[in-house]
Amino acid sequence: MTSFVATGVRGLVERVCAGDMRALARAISLVENDSLEATDVLSGCFPHTGAALRIGVTGSPGAGKSTVVDKLAQSWRAAGKRVGVVAVDPSSAFTGGAILGDRIRMQEAIGDNGLYVRSMATRGCLGGLARATAEVSQVIEASGKDVVLIETVGVGQDEVDIVRLADVTVVVLVPGMGDDVQSIKAGIMEIADIFVINKADREGADQVEKEIRALQSLSGRNGSWVASIVKTIATTGAGVDGLLDAIEQMREWLGAEGRLQARRKSYWQERIEEMVRQALLKEARTHGLSSEQFAEHAERVASGQEDPYQLVPSLVAQVFDARGAHQ
Amino acid sequence: MTSFVATGVRGLVERVCAGDMRALARAISLVENDSLEATDVLSGCFPHTGAALRIGVTGSPGAGKSTVVDKLAQSWRAAGKRVGVVAVDPSSAFTGGAILGDRIRMQEAIGDNGLYVRSMATRGCLGGLARATAEVSQVIEASGKDVVLIETVGVGQDEVDIVRLADVTVVVLVPGMGDDVQSIKAGIMEIADIFVINKADREGADQVEKEIRALQSLSGRNGSWVASIVKTIATTGAGVDGLLDAIEQMREWLGAEGRLQARRKSYWQERIEEMVRQALLKEARTHGLSSEQFAEHAERVASGQEDPYQLVPSLVAQVFDARGAHQ
Repeated sequence: MTSFVATGVRGLVERVCAGDMRALARAISLVENDSLEATDVLSGCFPHTGAALRIGVTGSPGAGKSTVVDKLAQSWRAAGKRVGVVAVDPSSAFTGGAILGDRIRMQEAIGDNGLYVRSMATRGCLGGLARATAEVSQVIEASGKDVVLIETVGVGQDEVDIVRLADVTVVVLVPGMGDDVQSIKAGIMEIADIFVINKADREGADQVEKEIRALQSLSGRNGSWVASIVKTIATTGAGVDGLLDAIEQMREWLGAEGRLQARRKSYWQERIEEMVRQALLKEARTHGLSSEQFAEHAERVASGQEDPYQLVPSLVAQVFDARGAHQ
Repeated sequence: MTSFVATGVRGLVERVCAGDMRALARAISLVENDSLEATDVLSGCFPHTGAALRIGVTGSPGAGKSTVVDKLAQSWRAAGKRVGVVAVDPSSAFTGGAILGDRIRMQEAIGDNGLYVRSMATRGCLGGLARATAEVSQVIEASGKDVVLIETVGVGQDEVDIVRLADVTVVVLVPGMGDDVQSIKAGIMEIADIFVINKADREGADQVEKEIRALQSLSGRNGSWVASIVKTIATTGAGVDGLLDAIEQMREWLGAEGRLQARRKSYWQERIEEMVRQALLKEARTHGLSSEQFAEHAERVASGQEDPYQLVPSLVAQVFDARGAHQ
């Protein structure tokens, strides 16, 4: 069976890498649903990744992220580059995961093999949204994209984790949202490489710029790179050329002195650790800790009959003993 | 050494449970910093918890959560109840963790042994903010509180995790913030037991109520409980009595048919699992997987020399083998 699955997956991965859109959609579903074949799909795609530039686009709701992403994608398509877009929608529980603009954009993308747009719902992602987004981005990248754009609302830890996978982080702000700069998760402000002040024809655009400059005096990971600030009116396309230039400059900067490699290494260090953590829990479930057992312990802890802080070490010991006995 | 530590901790826990405020502050620091004594402190406090009502108060920035929490705390103090407040500040990276209103409230609380306010910074919490908040709440509860209020901004997964520890979830909304209802993390809207429409004298209060009713037609965990909607102007205190009534009704509802126990069980089921996951990673670090090794693997993965999806299973096997060899 396994070899049959592996053969099937190998064929699928080959078709993905050859740019087959239907194979891509199927591979993404396998990964997103954490199916049995997911690891083989990811493993098969992995050697075909690394060349694309990964750009995270984040910002508060209503800042115009989708429009910025659309304009970037269109510009790169016009220049002959192949573009993937992963749009993460964190407010999807009640809408069922559909992003309003997404269907429209999908319409535009029909018949264009160089553009692939995928939206991620926050629901039903086993093992977390950041994992699922990273894995789906990787499969899309393997399908032969030059650029992968990852779009997400920048308000929670999920979003910080998602943005970490990007080589270049673009934060979209708008004037007149009062404490807009403050409402963006602090961790994201710190890893921003490029700030976009969108809807820059609105009053207060200079004020937003001033706030960003104030924050930059305290800045973070970027070493010698001082985040650029670009003003856009994405709906009309004004300023998008400036944003493209800023991204290109960032790409050149990253290309020097092993900076891109250093960023990706730091990302993978966290990601591998998370993968190990998840895999260990899976082992625990197989060797000794069933959901029923967790439920029974939870019942006793909730009623005060069992002390969770003494329980957990004994559960961990049990996992190792059970696994040892099976070897 | 261990017995000395344990004896020291036992004395500290006794003083915490006797209501000693300085002992409480010290116990919280031990837990927050994940120090060696943390488990003993938590284990010592655990038998003294369970009787307090845990109330989560969440909502978007600027909705007036702090004012609502202050008014509730004052009302309960006036009725002779002992109150603990844990305020989680997610935008603290640049401000250093200080909540503006917090110091003011601390001032008011001076000399009142029945009120304890603690703010949590999002930085420097080893093992995650949700864990730290849960553990700090528990220590405060053990110090003899009748009610523990947990206040947090409701925008990310962190916040959903934090709110899960509450018995009663209060979501604070304000009129005129446009897509305010939408910007609250969907998971929180679903677990809301009570909606507060604060600043209810503003235009649009009825519109917010209408939106909530619309969402409720799709609602979630609460079984036969339909979330109540309360209008307040927290700054003047208007409507706070109505909120107190709504909380009291919720408490009565939870008291019947084992509902409170069921909620706490479901919380502990997730929490124990997370604790096991953390403990397994700690084991992994001790037995075979040092930070240096993670870093070396990350380097190779980032440069495409090593496939992470084949790496992780081998790392996990290595952990079990190393631990087996040490037994």
